[in-house]
Amino acid sequence: MPRYALLVEYDGRPFAGWQRQADQPSVQAAIEAALARLEPRDHTIAAAGRTDAGVHARGQVAHCDMDKDWDPFRLSEALNFHLKPAPVAIRAASAVFDDWHARFSAVERRYLFRLLMRRAPATLEAGQVWRVNHELDVDAMRDGAAHLLGQHDFTTFRSVMCQAKSPVKTMDEITIRRVEGLAGPEVHFFLRARSFLHNQVRSIVGTLERVGASAWAPEDVKTALEARSRAACGPVCPPDGLSLMGVGYPDDPFA
Amino acid sequence: MPRYALLVEYDGRPFAGWQRQADQPSVQAAIEAALARLEPRDHTIAAAGRTDAGVHARGQVAHCDMDKDWDPFRLSEALNFHLKPAPVAIRAASAVFDDWHARFSAVERRYLFRLLMRRAPATLEAGQVWRVNHELDVDAMRDGAAHLLGQHDFTTFRSVMCQAKSPVKTMDEITIRRVEGLAGPEVHFFLRARSFLHNQVRSIVGTLERVGASAWAPEDVKTALEARSRAACGPVCPPDGLSLMGVGYPDDPFA
Repeated sequence: MPRYALLVEYDGRPFAGWQRQADQPSVQAAIEAALARLEPRDHTIAAAGRTDAGVHARGQVAHCDMDKDWDPFRLSEALNFHLKPAPVAIRAASAVFDDWHARFSAVERRYLFRLLMRRAPATLEAGQVWRVNHELDVDAMRDGAAHLLGQHDFTTFRSVMCQAKSPVKTMDEITIRRVEGLAGPEVHFFLRARSFLHNQVRSIVGTLERVGASAWAPEDVKTALEARSRAACGPVCPPDGLSLMGVGYPDDPFA
Repeated sequence: MPRYALLVEYDGRPFAGWQRQADQPSVQAAIEAALARLEPRDHTIAAAGRTDAGVHARGQVAHCDMDKDWDPFRLSEALNFHLKPAPVAIRAASAVFDDWHARFSAVERRYLFRLLMRRAPATLEAGQVWRVNHELDVDAMRDGAAHLLGQHDFTTFRSVMCQAKSPVKTMDEITIRRVEGLAGPEVHFFLRARSFLHNQVRSIVGTLERVGASAWAPEDVKTALEARSRAACGPVCPPDGLSLMGVGYPDDPFA
């Protein structure tokens, strides 16, 4: 069966998350239903990152197995046609080898978290930013984030629901930037790692926000990390600002 | 009665436009209803730009007259509280003189139109961009736009519904930029004038898109303008990409 990699963008708001569930809408089920319009049978697709409810994607990667040989461009166009009106789009498709796997071949995940600093509720950015009332100290947040770089036991920053075998992960990058957005000043957090634990990004951003608000000192992040205890984590922030921006593979299937 | 200027942001999608209408939701009615929660009576507010259905605002300006003296910050907070969950936000409020008028005191309006160039449907940007399938020639669009700068009879670029007394307007700026957006390459059109005719921005952008797609030559914009005939206009583009970004006054009430 020819296998195709799909580069997927979605607005996470109407979905209970990526993963197919019995009685709630999911991105996976939306794409599988579109595939069934092209080749009528059950389809099961796999993705690099199983994003939570309300989390968005700009560069999620999934793969599907088809009966027929499809021109990748025609496959993406046909899927986009059948995905309407769901806010899910196939940005690219590419033929890959049978042993290529969207999840297991991935060597890097990149996330962006957008935080908007203003008093007024978000309107055009609603659901796409976490709005906080106060200005945040970006330098302090960078100092706090520095403690998280490299290989650590991230038990503190991991959901109790997390099913990963080990809490040890290597954080390759946390870049924090102040950006003047159309709705006001934003803070953008870019996080990059081979893989993430469940709720790891939201646990980290929620904790760093406390540092930015001067409720925590930057060194408190180190103390929390070393506690290896979920109770030591700051508040987990909402999903609204989070997007899976991209997934890295030894050979980029979309290059 | 103390008068207040309001700096207003909204997502235009759920509204039939700025202006109050008998049986359709409008931004004006949403704000007037919030004012009635603060001072129970009929309120009538005026705005600098009467945006159409689906058109957004980042910097609309309105004014309201109150019975009581309000601290401007408390007024904006109270309005935002009562506006929920409508996607309308008061970004700032400011006390102004009784003869200050959001519409008649305005000396400049600034609009942004966002166009997204890609095949896949928009998801996170849905309703906030006009998506076209093809790449556009930005240099050609700039050459076309240059013919529209300065004072002209804009009958060609004016809705037949337009109620302005004269079709003569002065276009002070049309800046066209290619921007790498998160969803793909965008073209941003910034238009600035003392005032605009009904549908003028969408008529101009729709026409310039034809130039960018090489269906029109840049000089065809000049020919269309000089025809002073609605029939000479290119296709009017959808409202999705349009936002009223700001309004200029001799003294900025929010400075």
